[in-house]
Order: sequence, then structure tokens, then C-alpha cells
Amino acid sequence: MGKPCQALILAGGSGTRLWPLSRERYPKQFLKLRFLRDASLFQKTVLRMLKIVDSPQEIYIVAPETYKYMIRGQLREIGISVPEENMIFEPNGKNTFPAAALGILAMREHSGECNVLIIPSDHLLEDEKLNKAVNKGLRIVDRFLVTFGIKPTSPHTGYGYIKPGEKLAEGYRVQEFTEKPDVETAKKYVDNGYYWNSGIFLVNSEVFLEEANKHQSEAIQYLKTLEVEKAYEKIESISIDYAIMEKTRRAAVIPFRGKWTDLGDFFSMYKAMPKDKNSNSGNAELIAINSKRNIAITNKLTAIIDVKDMIIIDTPDALLICPQSSAQKVKQIVKKLKKGNDQRAEIHTTVYKPWGYYVLLEDKPTHKVKRLTILPGEGISLQLHHHRSEHWVVVGGMAKITLVSGEKRKEEFLRKGESLYVPPGIAHRVENPGKIPLHIIETQIGEYLKEDDIIRLKDPYNRRQ
Amino acid sequence: MGKPCQALILAGGSGTRLWPLSRERYPKQFLKLRFLRDASLFQKTVLRMLKIVDSPQEIYIVAPETYKYMIRGQLREIGISVPEENMIFEPNGKNTFPAAALGILAMREHSGECNVLIIPSDHLLEDEKLNKAVNKGLRIVDRFLVTFGIKPTSPHTGYGYIKPGEKLAEGYRVQEFTEKPDVETAKKYVDNGYYWNSGIFLVNSEVFLEEANKHQSEAIQYLKTLEVEKAYEKIESISIDYAIMEKTRRAAVIPFRGKWTDLGDFFSMYKAMPKDKNSNSGNAELIAINSKRNIAITNKLTAIIDVKDMIIIDTPDALLICPQSSAQKVKQIVKKLKKGNDQRAEIHTTVYKPWGYYVLLEDKPTHKVKRLTILPGEGISLQLHHHRSEHWVVVGGMAKITLVSGEKRKEEFLRKGESLYVPPGIAHRVENPGKIPLHIIETQIGEYLKEDDIIRLKDPYNRRQ
Repeated sequence: MGKPCQALILAGGSGTRLWPLSRERYPKQFLKLRFLRDASLFQKTVLRMLKIVDSPQEIYIVAPETYKYMIRGQLREIGISVPEENMIFEPNGKNTFPAAALGILAMREHSGECNVLIIPSDHLLEDEKLNKAVNKGLRIVDRFLVTFGIKPTSPHTGYGYIKPGEKLAEGYRVQEFTEKPDVETAKKYVDNGYYWNSGIFLVNSEVFLEEANKHQSEAIQYLKTLEVEKAYEKIESISIDYAIMEKTRRAAVIPFRGKWTDLGDFFSMYKAMPKDKNSNSGNAELIAINSKRNIAITNKLTAIIDVKDMIIIDTPDALLICPQSSAQKVKQIVKKLKKGNDQRAEIHTTVYKPWGYYVLLEDKPTHKVKRLTILPGEGISLQLHHHRSEHWVVVGGMAKITLVSGEKRKEEFLRKGESLYVPPGIAHRVENPGKIPLHIIETQIGEYLKEDDIIRLKDPYNRRQ
Repeated sequence: MGKPCQALILAGGSGTRLWPLSRERYPKQFLKLRFLRDASLFQKTVLRMLKIVDSPQEIYIVAPETYKYMIRGQLREIGISVPEENMIFEPNGKNTFPAAALGILAMREHSGECNVLIIPSDHLLEDEKLNKAVNKGLRIVDRFLVTFGIKPTSPHTGYGYIKPGEKLAEGYRVQEFTEKPDVETAKKYVDNGYYWNSGIFLVNSEVFLEEANKHQSEAIQYLKTLEVEKAYEKIESISIDYAIMEKTRRAAVIPFRGKWTDLGDFFSMYKAMPKDKNSNSGNAELIAINSKRNIAITNKLTAIIDVKDMIIIDTPDALLICPQSSAQKVKQIVKKLKKGNDQRAEIHTTVYKPWGYYVLLEDKPTHKVKRLTILPGEGISLQLHHHRSEHWVVVGGMAKITLVSGEKRKEEFLRKGESLYVPPGIAHRVENPGKIPLHIIETQIGEYLKEDDIIRLKDPYNRRQ
């Protein structure tokens, strides 16, 4: 091992090209992927960083506020405790430069000068190869802002390219960053030894801030002097590449010689997934007659006949079908949905909450059925509904229920198999006091079942508020 | 109007080419189709017959026993009371000849000699045109077994063809019935004025039985002398065409000059459905980008990009995708499923029962959630489970509940919003005493949740048993 290094995970970004698998409020990096054994790219990234840094204390995470619960939940699932002060939440996403600057300022405050591996949370790559490349980078990090260049496997038009220049002790000076090229140009780049721009960087905090002060002095000034909310109102949305890498004279590129993908669309995902003998990938339950090279991600029996090179993505509330060659166009669907104010651009039938999540099992004008999953130690705050009653049946775990009606207050425990009726107008609270997740089937009945029929109340007896 | 005529609806047959929309136990003719305003082909057929016969008393229905509840339920939905004795249930399906013979023998017993329109329940056609053709047929029915020939719109290879011969007072003598041809032969047939064999017949009971006695004497003998169960054990599975039409010298064909389809596969269905400006059909919620001529039948938002001439059929437990040109191959999927003993060849997540139906909302190892719909006047018989408890929440209608535990017996009524817990080992019965359907959300919890954990009991207090 060379010099010590800390990790800054950029967990923002809302991929629209993996819709309907990902949604705006449940983006690509948090998707549980079957071919990753139900881990997410974010979780894989955290685990990957633990092979590079010394302990979870050296992992920092920057993300928009809206992903807070998802990040905490997913860390808990893999049993990694990142200190609360290492989690830096942005008021909203402003691309990678503000996130990186905010993170590095915090890291410097905690531990002084440091070397920082800035890594997106939505890439998939060979861990050992990254370790090697980082070790090389650490040898030149006191003089250069290091970027990692991926050896291209095809003239991909979805990435920026890096032209290597003068050879250094490790890697090369960056001679030029290029925008996403057309196919012809991309071919030339590949032939001439350019690298794909991975968006992974290794920097020394002081070098980074010097260059940031030079090229983004206003933004750094805001971040240093204002509350983060105020600063974020003023600074522009800009990537690390645009903000400093393309401007600095101190950019170096270290080749990364391993498998790498940003799972940027379903075609990249297809390429990364294991395949059966007909090169179909995805579904456990696939009946394929004369069908080849398809990706089918569904949660049900899927039958295809004479289907080739297609993308088939099925979720409880939306189905997507297109040729693999049209993978990049999926964002057009999301655009259309957003234009029509359609919630399905943003959320799934699985909705993540501070306390866990719920799955909508049935949604009818007269009733709704949900499965609530409340994580150990969490609870749903005291609330009441005017227009609906709720029936709860505990199907797993243990629930602590509080009912408040006027001056009366009642607490009880519900075990698996027990149930409770909550009439309209009665304030109720449910907590999971146990060690395993609490699962409840909730049946709502009423003449008005929208989520906004909810009044949240202060519970004077609840010390957690 | 000419002579009187009665109708014999053949409601057997289990289409496998509309899977996963249709299943073996829920075949094509009973499918509720959105483009028919949620009516089924069977219901359309019954309503069509009411334009030809004088009253529901003149409609007879033959079908395998297994479809009994579906037939009764669907008749009730359209408010048509066919007399119980007009519904003739076969022990099992033996193709159209035994069904027709069984039906005609029963009709003759009820009302003596009669003219019978034998009509499959899974066709879609122009009612007025059928009326015209039937009226023509009635003019020659005392001398001929009349079949209706469809004027071909294409050299279809999925139908038999009829070569018309000598001109009669109405229509033509049949010169030849042909098997399903190859495309070249089919083209020749179309050019030479052949008709498609529709499978609709008009016969006089006496003429039919004379010819049946001549060409299928054994079968008729069995049907006349044995119990139907015994007779069906002995007689072979054979179509009307093979059994008598191809053998008799008294076959005539009346041209049917109107739209007709047997919805034999999804491509025929596509042709019969209304289409949007891009010739896509099916889904209410379809986002189609550069996509044309697709049929998409799903119950969710469906997004397609650069997709053409495809079939997309989504149901809660199975998804089918194939080009329209492969529509006929869908049966191969069903074959595979049946070979693997897969229930999804036979049933939906919606399962039809004598008392109504249930929809499986969630199926987990620890719990199951179902929505039960119990029709007015119906009930689920007294039963108990050893390994599971059930929670019922009434979300629509009124339930009458009976609980029996040892000598104790309790009856109670549950209104919308009320709920009940049924522990393992407690015998329970639920009825719908009301006038509207009863809807219950049932949550099952236990260590063993299979359908065979059920003990059905006699209820001494229940006069319906």
C-alpha cells in the first residue's frame, strides 16, 4: 500500500434511462439488481471502498437530501456504519463539482489535508483493478488531479474521451478532454489510444482546492462562507470535468485496465449480466422459443417467441419494450411522463420512507391494500385520517401500537397473526420495537383514499420527536 | 321471419393460442375483452342468439361440466335466464359432434322436431348478416344440413375450405370440404370461389339424426341408451365436420357475407380491434414512440419504442411477447407449461369458483393476500384450516359469517369496513346474503399456506347443502 486515502462517494444523480426499473426518487445507484445478488450499485461501491480505505470512518458520502433514508437503509442492510458526520446531504443535486467540493471541504475539516478518491456510486467495475490503479495514482497525487481512463472496448458515443499526453512516473498528463463524439470520431479516438472518461478521480485536498479556487472561485467562496442551503441557491450545476479538469494544467490520467460499466442504459446492463446459452439474460422464469440476445427483467413468467435483441422490463405499474439499439431513447418516455405530471416517472409501487417502505398491492376506488415494512427501531409517526379506516394484520415481526383519542391513550403489542382496526379520526402510531423487520398488511377503506388525508400529530410521550 | 329456429351454443373448447389471456380453465369464449366493453364472446353469442330465436327458453348450451360456474355467472351478468334444463353439461370435452348430438337429442325431447342453429361461442361476427344467412338457410333446412361459408378475405391457412357445387334454391350443395391448406393451395381456393368453413351449422333435428345414425350410429346409440357419463367414456372425440358433414350427401353451404372472426390467435384479435392513429391497439395507457401496428393488452402503463407488428400480452402472473407473424406459435408455450405441470397453463391469478372468484394479490412464504368476490346469494361452504389463520376485511357489500367450534356456533354480519379473525381449527363459512357482490380482503398467515390445507364440513344448519 502507498499513501493513505479516503473515499468520497457521489451518490446523487437520477438515471432516467433505466426506467421503469429506476425512478426519479429511486435512481439507478439504489436499485437492487438480481444479477448482483440483490445488492445495489451504491452498496457495491461502499463495499469496494472498504478494500481501499482503512475503515468505514474514512468513507464519506455526498447526496441530495431526498436520498437520505435510502442511503441509511442500504448501509444498514450491508452492516456498514458510516459515521453520521461523514454523510453530507445537499439541499438538491447540482451535478458533481459542488458535491465533490462540499465533500472535500468537510473531509479537510475533519482530518486536515488528505487524499480523496472521488467515486460515483453507480458504476460496476473490477475491484482489484481499481485498487491497482489507485495505488499508481497515489504516487502522483501530490502534484496532479488524477482521473482514471478506461481502455475502450468499442467506439462508444455515450462517453467523453481523454487524450493522453506526456508520460509521467505513473500514467500520463491529460492532453485533452473531449465531448461525446459521433461514431466516426469515436473510432478515430479508439485507434489513437484515447481513454473513456470514467468520472472517477483521485485528488489531494489541497491541490483540488487550489485548482477549484483558481477556476471556480465564486462557488468555493459560497461553500466556505455560507450555509449550505444558501450556497446551493447561488452556485451553478456543473460537473467536475467542466468545472476544473478541462481547465487545469495539472490533470493526469491513469489507465484502468479492467472491466467497467456505468450501466448507463439497458444495453450496458445486458452486457454486464450473465447470459444463458441463447445469450438471453435477466429472468429466472423465461420461456424463450427461437429467441436470442434479449434482456428480460420481470417478476413473472415471461414467454418470448421469435424475439431478438430486445429489452423487456416489467414492474408492477409499468412495462417497457424496445430494441436494444433504442436503449438510449428510454429517457424520452420519462420526459413524456414528467410533462404529463405522471407520478410513475418518480415513484414505484414500492415507496421508500424514513421508517422503511410500503408496497401497493391493490389500488381501487373503494379500498387500497398495502404491505408496510417497518425497520427495527423505526416507527410511523402519530397521525390520523378523516376519511379512511385502516385494518392492520401483522404478518411478520412485532408491532407496538399507540392509539390516542381525545384524552385517552392506549398502547398495545401486536404479534404475527394479530390484527387491529383503526377507525377514522383516531390518532395512531406504529413502531417496530424488535430486532427484525415488521411486516403489516394494511387495508384502507373509505370514500377518499389519497395520501394527503393525513394529519401528523406531536406525541408528547414519544421521546424520539 | 321464416320458420322458427332454436339455438344450440357450443361453449366447449379450450383455446391455447390466446395464452396468457386465456387459460385452460378460463378459455377464450369466457374472456372479458376490453374492446367488447368487457363482455365475453360467450356473452356476445348468447345476446346474438336472442336476435334469432324467440326467447331465452329456446337457447340451449352444451359445455364441459368444468365450465358450469363460469356459464351461470356470465349469464347472470348479462341478465339472461336460460332454463336450467337447457344447459347440458358434458363429463368432458369430446369435440363438436358429441356436443351437438347430445344437445339436439335433448332439444328434441323437450320440444319435438325442431330447427337448430349450432353455433360456437367463440366467434365474433356481424349479427344482422348472420340473421340474413340463417333466414336463407331455413328455406332449405328440411332437406339439407346447412353450413355457413365465410367469403375469404385472405388465403388463410388456419381454416378448412368449402367448395360450392350445384346451385340450390338458397346457397349451394357442398361439393367438397377441404383440410387446412398451404398458402399456395389457399390462394387457388380463394380464386376459385371456395368459402371458409365457419363451424356454424343450421340443421333440422330429424335430418341431423338421420345422417348421424347413418354415419355415427355407434355414438348415437350410446348417447340414446346410456347415462351421459358412460356414453362419453365410449364415444370418440370428433368434430361435426369429420363425423357427418364430410360424409353426408345432404350438405349445403349458405354464403355468409359479413365480417367474421374466430379470434383464433392474437393476430386475428388485433385485426378485430379498434386501432389508434399508428394502428396500435389494445391498451388504454400506451406510450408509443415510433411504434406501429402492435397489439398491447396489459393492465398497466406500457411504453414501447421502435416496436412494430408485435404482440404484447401482460397478465399478473405471465407476460408474452412475440411478433404478430408468430401468433400461431403461442400454443407451443402452453405445451411447454403443461409438460412441466405448470399451473399457469391452466389458471390465472384470478381463479373462478362456484361462489364467485378470487384474485391473488400477494403470495409469500409467510402470508398470502387475496381479494375474494362472492356473488349475491352465494357462499363459501363450511371449512377449516389446520395451519393457517385468516383475517377478513369487508371492503364492499355485506357478509354473513358462521363460526363453528365444537358445539358452539356463532353467526354474525360484517358490513363494509368491518373485519374478523378466524384462527386455525375454527370452522367458518361466509355467505353473501345481499344484492350486490361481497368483496373481502383475506390475509392468510401460517407455516403452510397451500390450497390443500382445507377440510370441508357439512353444516347441519345450512338448507342449501
